[in-house]
Amino acid sequence: MPQKQLHLTAFMRPVSLHSGAWRYPGAYADANFNLAHLTSFIQKLESAKFDAFFMADHLAVMNMPIEALKRSHTITSFEPFTLLAALSAVTTKIGLAATASTTYEQPYHIARRFASLDHLSGGRAAWNIVTTGNPDSSKNFGQDEHMEHADRYKRAREFFDVVTGLWDSFADDAFIRDKESGIFFDPERMHTLNHKGDSLQVKGPLNIARPVQGWPVIVQAGQSEPGRQLAAETAEVVFCSPRDLAGSKALYADIKGRVRAAGRNPDHLKILPAAFVVVGDTAEDAQEKRLKLDSLVHYDTAIASLSVMLGTDARVFDPDQPIPENLPKTNASQTAQDGVVKLGKDEGLTVRQIAQRMGGYSGLAFVGTPEEIATEMQQWLDEEGADGFTVVFPFLPQGLDAVAEKLIPELQRRGLFRKDYEGATLREHLGLPRPGNQFFKESVL
Amino acid sequence: MPQKQLHLTAFMRPVSLHSGAWRYPGAYADANFNLAHLTSFIQKLESAKFDAFFMADHLAVMNMPIEALKRSHTITSFEPFTLLAALSAVTTKIGLAATASTTYEQPYHIARRFASLDHLSGGRAAWNIVTTGNPDSSKNFGQDEHMEHADRYKRAREFFDVVTGLWDSFADDAFIRDKESGIFFDPERMHTLNHKGDSLQVKGPLNIARPVQGWPVIVQAGQSEPGRQLAAETAEVVFCSPRDLAGSKALYADIKGRVRAAGRNPDHLKILPAAFVVVGDTAEDAQEKRLKLDSLVHYDTAIASLSVMLGTDARVFDPDQPIPENLPKTNASQTAQDGVVKLGKDEGLTVRQIAQRMGGYSGLAFVGTPEEIATEMQQWLDEEGADGFTVVFPFLPQGLDAVAEKLIPELQRRGLFRKDYEGATLREHLGLPRPGNQFFKESVL
Ligand SMILES: Cc1cc2nc3c(=O)[nH]c(=O)nc-3n(C[C@H](O)[C@H](O)[C@H](O)COP(=O)(O)O)c2cc1C
Ligand SMILES: Cc1cc2nc3c(=O)[nH]c(=O)nc-3n(C[C@H](O)[C@H](O)[C@H](O)COP(=O)(O)O)c2cc1C
Repeated sequence: MPQKQLHLTAFMRPVSLHSGAWRYPGAYADANFNLAHLTSFIQKLESAKFDAFFMADHLAVMNMPIEALKRSHTITSFEPFTLLAALSAVTTKIGLAATASTTYEQPYHIARRFASLDHLSGGRAAWNIVTTGNPDSSKNFGQDEHMEHADRYKRAREFFDVVTGLWDSFADDAFIRDKESGIFFDPERMHTLNHKGDSLQVKGPLNIARPVQGWPVIVQAGQSEPGRQLAAETAEVVFCSPRDLAGSKALYADIKGRVRAAGRNPDHLKILPAAFVVVGDTAEDAQEKRLKLDSLVHYDTAIASLSVMLGTDARVFDPDQPIPENLPKTNASQTAQDGVVKLGKDEGLTVRQIAQRMGGYSGLAFVGTPEEIATEMQQWLDEEGADGFTVVFPFLPQGLDAVAEKLIPELQRRGLFRKDYEGATLREHLGLPRPGNQFFKESVL
Repeated sequence: MPQKQLHLTAFMRPVSLHSGAWRYPGAYADANFNLAHLTSFIQKLESAKFDAFFMADHLAVMNMPIEALKRSHTITSFEPFTLLAALSAVTTKIGLAATASTTYEQPYHIARRFASLDHLSGGRAAWNIVTTGNPDSSKNFGQDEHMEHADRYKRAREFFDVVTGLWDSFADDAFIRDKESGIFFDPERMHTLNHKGDSLQVKGPLNIARPVQGWPVIVQAGQSEPGRQLAAETAEVVFCSPRDLAGSKALYADIKGRVRAAGRNPDHLKILPAAFVVVGDTAEDAQEKRLKLDSLVHYDTAIASLSVMLGTDARVFDPDQPIPENLPKTNASQTAQDGVVKLGKDEGLTVRQIAQRMGGYSGLAFVGTPEEIATEMQQWLDEEGADGFTVVFPFLPQGLDAVAEKLIPELQRRGLFRKDYEGATLREHLGLPRPGNQFFKESVL
């Protein structure tokens, strides 16, 4: 059997999820909000043959205490559609994934905007469907309370049907443009949706041609029960955040099983866990970079995060000693407490260092030489823990450069990652079929 | 007194408003929906030093009978924000004006998207505030009926206050990004709007820095009583569609008077009537081009338009003869009927030709040599009928090329139009001040 191939997308809003990233020596402090930097990042990612550049999105400033917020480089960011459209003009192959909320948007707008981005980019758009995590968003949209979780997912499922229905408003061959007869398009090849559902009523048709990819690639990142079910029914890429390989294998098996149960081909949904990747020349060099980065997290923020994880006030501990033995049992998450204690022992970290890890980036991380990281990634791929990764960079530009210039060549050497794009569209990069039009037979064009 | 200067924006959605444009010999049939063409158009407009590229917008397919719709090149168009963001990456100076509806949008989204476009383009964004003309739009947004005219304008006025309030969420100097102290921004320089009004409730702050221009340039195109009043209170550019110089002078005086009454400087609102410009090598050449173009309007559509204008069924007339004398009095608009009869006499047109004029583009037109058109434009400028024009092209690329290569040099020769951009932002091109932040003193940066 030929070696399975990794798919890699780059998590780019914010450009680093690590809260100390902007302070790293030599890092661009404004990397998240500087078009010239973002242009250079996407061009490097494209030359490294990444599948896609991924913009998360939030509809309010982050819901954190002002003492933490004022240290956060996420406070000002570009809006995804405008940024990705601008970046589409300076790239030719890399996919462009935008997050858009089904809770605080209208399907007609969303369908139009993704169709437009897909046309402008020659078939490179993807929609990360979110129901919006940050409850503060509601107050920016005239609603006192964030919609209930179950209602959000119910609306999301219907929203997906409406958007895909609108994308199918025109057959691919509807636009005749016959100067002689004066007929611009064939009205028989236009479909009016007339959707009347529980949450949404949308007439259509959309005022833009069917997207180049038929439908932009559908991405989903929810992990709750209804989140997984939505993914199984609709998604072609899943972003997720498992802690370790065992957890990811369980999630992978669960979601692929649901896809099968929904009557879909499990190869047509790619599971790409978020992975924080710190590449070093040696294992020690990589560890040092990470510790240096963690040390840039403000202690107040850090210790608050650690206290939450431990379920006890960690400010009373000596910051320069290990976590004391015999912590009080917590009625928060015992798994979380045990995990943190184990982390401290395994890496020999002080309270301060663990706190800064928790306040920096506490998710799945690959820290090591290109060879070590490539070996880990291959294991995840081979053991069905992942179909690839959503790469989170530690700091930029250096952390991104190291991935592009050191890790990618190692993955390519091992036959785990493409040396060049083989197709033109994001669907082609991901090995996904182009969906047929639900209202019209395949175009013969 | 130095010669007043014209301001010119290009009406680019659709790229021609004339319904026969796409059929013109040599014209791009897909000009309205082809990124390569649109890129070449905006680059030509920028080398001709146009103030701005203007995208009208509609939230439904055009509300016309299917027999006319199927002949319309407007059926598929790019969405304005994505297109303008992409075009911002291939231009450096020209303004980018997007239409956005206050009736079917949310102010938080609109504020964010314009702020993002303004940052991405280095201060070139403008917002054409519309309340949305096409009543079919409501059905694409879950509403059976289009909101009442008065309610639409009431909401629009409040919407403007919310959007501008959100743009002012951060002082210009809020972003400290001090790596040493770890402070990214100064919370004292962030304002939470907490708007609670009749139509809208929006908390804020916006999650993006204040636009480069402070506020993107505000444009308005409504001409009803509340439309004019909204313009007087908020707009910095007015797009309008007067029939002739006398009508435009009246509108100009009315709007500038309202601006004064609102306590604003009338020089800070520019009135730019839409003008269809057909440039020829001779007057006859220009007229021939126009007649050729009109002849491409389908007779059924044309005669239906003429019947409406005359208030009587024009299908009974001989298409190849002049309009008969002694038409029945109409209880539609007698002014419209008289105007059409006069046009037929003045230009010696047949019923078919008049019908095709009405079904093609019946608004204000400048048709002639570069010298003739420059003289007319200067008269409008000098007699306070206009501060410039929103140029509508007859067909593309040729009609746009003729304006850029023949008319613009003539205007420049006469000292009526800039030879080069003097500023960097659209506000600077238009001679408009940068608004101060309503919540913070001017930045000292
Ligand atoms: C890699 C990744 C990216 C995400 N991006 C966003 C985002 O951009 N906006 C957002 O509101 N939520 C985002 N989420 C959160 C999910 O959409 C979802 O709200 C969260 O995982 C909770 O899942 P649940 O609502 O199904 O319980 C992201 C999650 C992951 C793992
Ligand atoms: C040059 C010009 C451009 C316009 N562009 C748009 C547009 O993009 N979208 C829209 O809904 N209406 C557009 N309109 C229509 C106006 O916004 C407005 O609806 C119309 O002039 C009727 O005015 P009233 O609603 O104030 O009576 C435009 C009008 C003019 C003169």
